[in-house]
Amino acid sequence: MILDGKKTSEKILNQLAEKVKTMDKKPKLAVILVGNDPASEIYVSSKEKAAKKIGVGSVVIKLPEETDEKTLTDKIYELNNDETVTGILVQLPLPKHIDKNKITDAICPKKDIDCFTPENVGRLMQGREPYFNPVTPQGILMLLDEYGIDVKGKHAVIVGRSNIVGKPMAQMLLNRDATVTVCHSKTENLDDIIKTADILISAVGKKVVRCKMVKSESIVIDVGISRDNNGKIVGDLDFDELVNVVKYITPVPGGVGPMTIASLMVNLINHP
Amino acid sequence: MILDGKKTSEKILNQLAEKVKTMDKKPKLAVILVGNDPASEIYVSSKEKAAKKIGVGSVVIKLPEETDEKTLTDKIYELNNDETVTGILVQLPLPKHIDKNKITDAICPKKDIDCFTPENVGRLMQGREPYFNPVTPQGILMLLDEYGIDVKGKHAVIVGRSNIVGKPMAQMLLNRDATVTVCHSKTENLDDIIKTADILISAVGKKVVRCKMVKSESIVIDVGISRDNNGKIVGDLDFDELVNVVKYITPVPGGVGPMTIASLMVNLINHP
Repeated sequence: MILDGKKTSEKILNQLAEKVKTMDKKPKLAVILVGNDPASEIYVSSKEKAAKKIGVGSVVIKLPEETDEKTLTDKIYELNNDETVTGILVQLPLPKHIDKNKITDAICPKKDIDCFTPENVGRLMQGREPYFNPVTPQGILMLLDEYGIDVKGKHAVIVGRSNIVGKPMAQMLLNRDATVTVCHSKTENLDDIIKTADILISAVGKKVVRCKMVKSESIVIDVGISRDNNGKIVGDLDFDELVNVVKYITPVPGGVGPMTIASLMVNLINHP
Repeated sequence: MILDGKKTSEKILNQLAEKVKTMDKKPKLAVILVGNDPASEIYVSSKEKAAKKIGVGSVVIKLPEETDEKTLTDKIYELNNDETVTGILVQLPLPKHIDKNKITDAICPKKDIDCFTPENVGRLMQGREPYFNPVTPQGILMLLDEYGIDVKGKHAVIVGRSNIVGKPMAQMLLNRDATVTVCHSKTENLDDIIKTADILISAVGKKVVRCKMVKSESIVIDVGISRDNNGKIVGDLDFDELVNVVKYITPVPGGVGPMTIASLMVNLINHP
């Protein structure tokens, strides 16, 4: 069975649009985009589109590739103090001459809509409510919820330990009482561990997990997104093979991607 | 083979004492102890003793059981601003009428020697240097280091997901390239998962892990500490049985306990 992220995302965005209509003060998203990375431009434009769809404000601040750290942090301080802005998002990756942490640390935790600041990450890890949940992991849980999949007690195996997906995903699953394993490039016996997964989440960006490793009747989430030799967008996994083996699987595109956008909009509406 | 925490701790404390002799400004630990919990009094006194042993200052602020939150946070603000104090430790547990998070959140992250503030926890989770590492997990890694045990690529299974041991332990092992699984009271198939552990860490406070679940030749760390029916201090595991099966094991007492004290003193010396 396919976990349809596109349909679920649209359903959630429609619900949010209804909610926004009832709000006296509409939330507003500020996005900072540095440089001209084509992928980043596409991501930013889909965030703008979603904001427009649900009826909230958005502003994109485009800065040239050569922008220095001080200009960026000054811009963030300005947005921190701007009462009309409810969420601040710095589109990653930033140019190499910029220390990413210095920039994201400057965001006020109460406007840190991507959950990038240590304070929000720490609150998440301590099982407390962060001001915002990390968007991709939250989007994945929203998708599981839509299909009535309960993770409690299940063994979730995450492949990939990035700060954006792997690590916060582990924490959010643990907060929901899953047993959680995090694997990565240094993992020995990856095959044996994946074979034990009730829920498998691949967030690597390349094909590490092969179909034959995956337990039948498991639930499979593909967070990967890259382009194959023909320029076609593909995930980490062999969807066509796995769809006949597993119980549930997300497609790429149309799985985790749209859920991430919907999750960002949920954060924007639920800002503290 | 026994991982001797008592001997290793003494060795580390002796090294720290040598280092302190060369320091112009000696560090100073401030401990806040609320109420009269006998176990807490023992813990605090061993921390004082260790501080004395390595030649650094320590001050214990004893407050009555009925102390309110404001008095406590005011005391912490005072210590935050006291330039002679390098580390602040609030002995847990606090009385029930006090919101623990409110108190530990008041500690300045640069004096948060137990790594309890969201900022330090978040930095740890992001793979950045926190100002202080969480003491029990750091103590366990120091013990593994002493015996030349490399965790890279190994499968570490942690039973227990507390904020003080289980969760930060998972993060520190992941930062050292172990594959990490966190189990807890809701875990299904605990036996099967423990059987796959190269390194097993039990931090539950009761006997959940049985000898027959444990893989031979594995490395076993017992963080549990409680009293049996005869008042004898015991760990989570059957040491006498396991010592003949596994490759390495920590005793209780004399394993993780003394390492936690040594680890706290390491933090005190390495304060930012």
